[in-house]
Amino acid sequence: MAVETTNVKATNKAWDGFTGGHWQNEINTRDFIQKNYTEYKGDDSFLEPIAPSTDKLWTKLQELFEVEHEQNGVYDMDNNIPSTLTSHGAGYLIKEEEKIVGLQTDKPLKQAFQPFGGIKMANNALTSNGYEVDENMTKVFTEWRKTHNQGVFDAYTPEMRLARKNKIITGLPDAYGRGRIIGDYRRIALYGIDFLMEQKKKDHDNCGSNVMLDDVIRLREEISEQYRALADLKKMAASYGFDISRPAENAQEAIQWLYFGYLGAIKAQNGAAMSIGRISAFLDIYIQRDLERGDITEFEAQELVDHLIMKLRMVKFARTPEYNSLFSGYPIWATLSIAGMGIDGRSLVTKNDFRILHTLTNMGPSPEPNLTVLYSSHLPEGFRTYAAKIAKESSSIQFENDDLLRANWGSDDCAIACCVSATVVGKDMQFFGARANLVKAVLYAINGCQDEKTKMQVGPRFRRMEGETLDFDEFMENYKQTLDWLAELYVNTLNIIHYMHDKYAYEAAQLALMDTDLKRTFATGIAGISHATDSIMAIKYGNVKVIRDEDGMAVDYVPQNEFPTYGNDNEEADAMANWILDYFMTQIKRQHTYRNSTPTTSLLTITSNVVYGKATGNTPDGRRAGKPLAPGANPSYQDGKFLGEKNGLLASLNSTARLEYEHARDGISNTQTINPNGLGKDDTTRINNLRNVLDGYFDKGGYHINVNVFTNELLLDAQKHPEKYPNLTIRVSGYAVKFRDLTPEQQADVISRTSHDHM
Amino acid sequence: MAVETTNVKATNKAWDGFTGGHWQNEINTRDFIQKNYTEYKGDDSFLEPIAPSTDKLWTKLQELFEVEHEQNGVYDMDNNIPSTLTSHGAGYLIKEEEKIVGLQTDKPLKQAFQPFGGIKMANNALTSNGYEVDENMTKVFTEWRKTHNQGVFDAYTPEMRLARKNKIITGLPDAYGRGRIIGDYRRIALYGIDFLMEQKKKDHDNCGSNVMLDDVIRLREEISEQYRALADLKKMAASYGFDISRPAENAQEAIQWLYFGYLGAIKAQNGAAMSIGRISAFLDIYIQRDLERGDITEFEAQELVDHLIMKLRMVKFARTPEYNSLFSGYPIWATLSIAGMGIDGRSLVTKNDFRILHTLTNMGPSPEPNLTVLYSSHLPEGFRTYAAKIAKESSSIQFENDDLLRANWGSDDCAIACCVSATVVGKDMQFFGARANLVKAVLYAINGCQDEKTKMQVGPRFRRMEGETLDFDEFMENYKQTLDWLAELYVNTLNIIHYMHDKYAYEAAQLALMDTDLKRTFATGIAGISHATDSIMAIKYGNVKVIRDEDGMAVDYVPQNEFPTYGNDNEEADAMANWILDYFMTQIKRQHTYRNSTPTTSLLTITSNVVYGKATGNTPDGRRAGKPLAPGANPSYQDGKFLGEKNGLLASLNSTARLEYEHARDGISNTQTINPNGLGKDDTTRINNLRNVLDGYFDKGGYHINVNVFTNELLLDAQKHPEKYPNLTIRVSGYAVKFRDLTPEQQADVISRTSHDHM
Repeated sequence: MAVETTNVKATNKAWDGFTGGHWQNEINTRDFIQKNYTEYKGDDSFLEPIAPSTDKLWTKLQELFEVEHEQNGVYDMDNNIPSTLTSHGAGYLIKEEEKIVGLQTDKPLKQAFQPFGGIKMANNALTSNGYEVDENMTKVFTEWRKTHNQGVFDAYTPEMRLARKNKIITGLPDAYGRGRIIGDYRRIALYGIDFLMEQKKKDHDNCGSNVMLDDVIRLREEISEQYRALADLKKMAASYGFDISRPAENAQEAIQWLYFGYLGAIKAQNGAAMSIGRISAFLDIYIQRDLERGDITEFEAQELVDHLIMKLRMVKFARTPEYNSLFSGYPIWATLSIAGMGIDGRSLVTKNDFRILHTLTNMGPSPEPNLTVLYSSHLPEGFRTYAAKIAKESSSIQFENDDLLRANWGSDDCAIACCVSATVVGKDMQFFGARANLVKAVLYAINGCQDEKTKMQVGPRFRRMEGETLDFDEFMENYKQTLDWLAELYVNTLNIIHYMHDKYAYEAAQLALMDTDLKRTFATGIAGISHATDSIMAIKYGNVKVIRDEDGMAVDYVPQNEFPTYGNDNEEADAMANWILDYFMTQIKRQHTYRNSTPTTSLLTITSNVVYGKATGNTPDGRRAGKPLAPGANPSYQDGKFLGEKNGLLASLNSTARLEYEHARDGISNTQTINPNGLGKDDTTRINNLRNVLDGYFDKGGYHINVNVFTNELLLDAQKHPEKYPNLTIRVSGYAVKFRDLTPEQQADVISRTSHDHM
Repeated sequence: MAVETTNVKATNKAWDGFTGGHWQNEINTRDFIQKNYTEYKGDDSFLEPIAPSTDKLWTKLQELFEVEHEQNGVYDMDNNIPSTLTSHGAGYLIKEEEKIVGLQTDKPLKQAFQPFGGIKMANNALTSNGYEVDENMTKVFTEWRKTHNQGVFDAYTPEMRLARKNKIITGLPDAYGRGRIIGDYRRIALYGIDFLMEQKKKDHDNCGSNVMLDDVIRLREEISEQYRALADLKKMAASYGFDISRPAENAQEAIQWLYFGYLGAIKAQNGAAMSIGRISAFLDIYIQRDLERGDITEFEAQELVDHLIMKLRMVKFARTPEYNSLFSGYPIWATLSIAGMGIDGRSLVTKNDFRILHTLTNMGPSPEPNLTVLYSSHLPEGFRTYAAKIAKESSSIQFENDDLLRANWGSDDCAIACCVSATVVGKDMQFFGARANLVKAVLYAINGCQDEKTKMQVGPRFRRMEGETLDFDEFMENYKQTLDWLAELYVNTLNIIHYMHDKYAYEAAQLALMDTDLKRTFATGIAGISHATDSIMAIKYGNVKVIRDEDGMAVDYVPQNEFPTYGNDNEEADAMANWILDYFMTQIKRQHTYRNSTPTTSLLTITSNVVYGKATGNTPDGRRAGKPLAPGANPSYQDGKFLGEKNGLLASLNSTARLEYEHARDGISNTQTINPNGLGKDDTTRINNLRNVLDGYFDKGGYHINVNVFTNELLLDAQKHPEKYPNLTIRVSGYAVKFRDLTPEQQADVISRTSHDHM
């Protein structure tokens, strides 16, 4: 094989000093990393402060951010240049200071015009921000070029529209890009584009037997699209003066080449989550080689990393008010995964993981990139301590259980897409599918699929529950048949969405950097797991009295006895949460999935918990209509006679850790706020305690945690005096956000959450 | 059902006087025809001459045709308005004279810009005719809106490109629209658009179970596209001042409504064959009602029919030089099928069939519409005599065996698409697939799939034949394995073409006027059947000496003994033709076909016989390299020691009639030229003899015949003095053409064909 490639000659310089292996003859980034990375077991003492260039750039950028903030999150927008890899020339923040270059459009923070997903949304994003619609573009993308959104609505059934309208299925990626695909951007640095094009050409030659089934034809066309996208990436890089047809030859080039890959992705796609993947150890190899050669200093290495991270802080997408109400505070999930263990027992921690976290010190906290530590108690103590320290100081990072990742995905090259969704870099892609509201489904089970808010008959005319109080056995029969119906409808709705996304908004630029023979997961999601659990426990033990309206529809519930609830380390309540998860997932798995993808589910709501709660009536656990749902897998923090986390942080974590990741392989999201005083009296104690909490939680099988360390008083003050806290960043469900960018409702929701003041 | 429709009220006036039936409650045009048509058994004495309005319009149109002819077939072209149903406002020839209105663009004969099939072809059509390319359109249809042509080439395999380049598979609809779909345009007149939209909405509601397989999603989206196309048809008609949301209320409206349906089709699609279907008896019902009511006279009825036919003479498409070399003389196959027998034993002949043929007298001969008589010896003698008369006078009509159609398609509502391809109107559609060159396959069998012209290895490296003369048994083994390979490659190439056509150039406007639950045929085709047959007979009996080049490739053949040939009523030769047909069709049937369509094949080359011949080397029957193949199923007319039709017209027809239509359900094309003197001494005798020839041919199972009645001397004179014969129209393979519009090569080919001077 090797002799056939053009690359071998070209790589003499690029690969000089690297340990060889399979990666030299075929695309195999992981093999390159494993053979070449230098594990780092020390502490953070080697880190260098901010460079003058970084400071200048960051100062300028903060000025632009202020303007953007004053203009409700929009610095500037394009309205008539459909964004493609080659639609814009080169753009800079301060050209002479930038070690890493490349903007989405011609100016920093200017949002691109991205109509392929839906011209209505693209135009709505313009008008809702006071920009003009271009009539010619509207004509092009209405009469001649169909979009994803139009395709989806052309195929939907009336029942799907009804379920969507009534928000039993909600947040569907039919009016925004599905995102969550991570290109293996490292491949450009390691191999250069020409080699990657050659490999795609081979894949095209070998795609399918000669029998042209629809599947084969589709894939053959996709490979051609990918091939063209690679050629366009070269053109894009050339507009900045770089030739990425060849591999990178030093650290600066490696970072630049890799970033060009990511830049191509965000030029071509406005996806809900545009994650960059797992790049830390990979880049460390190049930095380490340059350091050893004496080509750069640690100070310069940090400067390069800071500049890359700054680019990720600048990513912007034009979005609609509807989108912003689902995902508040302009997240784009440039999720960057660091650390993790290797399958061979070494950790994958390098100095670069420190450098990346250190950007939060050099440039201060920031929502993006969504920094994600793949955690294990087996990681070197120096790193675990440093990560705990940065988490405490910044409330800007999240942790995922790397032991569970390796066991479930069979790879030590996973990265997180979006918040909690793992994929093996370059080998898996996900069909993102938002979520079904399973506590609303509790109400549908009681009311025979008639919606408690709109009074519409959304699902089958199942028998209503009619007793004065709710009978547990009767309820369970109803709930199961409601979930059966919902799972089928949900999966088939997603089948349409992904068919049309592939047809009208195919992610060629990202998929070009991945294996042709991909594994695809079909991600569903569950909202309201804690409320569904608590409601069922209330029905079982709480002797719930039902209040009905004049039409006989149950509209309110009064639990008369105490009942066990999820989030308090109660085994029966936690088992009920697992039962819901297992039962729903089993029904999901029964369905046909697009491209025979592997179904998964998540317990994750992002900030949509607020709008989901708004659409959900009173629930049998005593939760009030319209109140936000607890986010993700979080226990309820609602006021309610029998509700809330009553047993402290560790009990709450124990309950969450009991949820079976094996059944929720799209991830289980848990967001916690800890009062600093609850962690100890001084910083060292607090850091060590936080590290110990993380060790314990993950060893018990907890999957994920967003760590916030602050008091509610701080948030209340920031609510009143936003001008005092321009950079206050907090973790919400699955991402970090500037507190001031949350809607008033979401600020109130965050403040109402439990802030644990004891373990 | 009836009570649910909006139409019942609206139709009180439209349907007044019609006999009711199932057609009132659901779409069933055939039922309406069967219950309401008036069979006509008389002669042509009722026909009326040309009306003054027709004369004015036709005179004006002929002036435009002259300009068009002087400009090499292009009167004018659009370059920047992608043609859609609503892209152009109203246009007229002479507004105040037109009883039937509607043009493809804003001006008569102006060719529309139709880029959805391929921007390269659309631009090539412009530049090859001296028009400018619009850069903005090129950008739209290159960067943002992919086209059918690009999709196909993205999915092709190298082997497919090679087979295409070497013309073993040829004329594929990958660089032009597949066409051959016939909307049931009558539905608009009978039901109005609103009812049709309602029915499509119901179909959408009932499409698929809830399981969203790719097939179901595709069809649901297609129905939505159809629904929008119907809405656009209303807008298009409204621009001419007509409200086609309701049914037609008189003959003029019925013709106008029906024509709007067809006009929508030709605005939306530049298909190779855009046939109008079977509209004669249907329209006669409306005319007859108006005549009986005294609302119109026969003179006015003929005027309406003449105006409709004139519109069909005006249809133009922008086409490339490559296309014109395949299909010479600007055919668009506005094929219009008349006559035919009913399943109940009545003929479907009405006065309207006479009126339609009479347009060839009133306005003179014309290539379009492609007038097609569905013939049976059971048709009334008055009509058969009149059809024979018009065929003799005009050499502009063709005949198809209606007895075979009814027996094979189970319907008396078939129409011909293009030349010889039957579909049941509104119920079937065809995936058109051009053809494989089976005499070139004879050479591949001898040379181990190495091409005799290009020396390329096109197929598998099969063993070459190496003897000094050709061994029959060895040849047959080789030929079979070559056909096995070719059939698989051919069908899979077509699978790609039709997948992409549906994806990028879907015929929504036509399919909106057809049943949602369509039967689809997958048409393949065979070129060179007579030469393949004669070559095999030569190998078997002719002791064919092989001449090889320095590389050992067979390049010429000398048959040393006489051998039986096809076209001379020799049973063994004719059986060999059937063997080739059956064997190839059997291999075709083994393959997976797109959308599980039903495979068929045709013996039809259209005028491509010339380019196919050009690409085919010397053949074992003695045919010289480069010489045109005999068209369709015609016997060879090549000079050659042992070749040609030697036994006269009837022997030739007997051979053709022996070909099994059951195995070539896409049609068997036969073109014959008869010297008038061969038919008899006076016109009455000639007409009666021609009618008797037709009766006999079709009773024996002949499928199709193009009838030309003239002498070769006439053609030779027209070749020398084209100015003397501006309207000389002749039948070539499957259509009629103005002789002066043929290329010099094709004129020479036509002249070289056998002109039978005796029966």
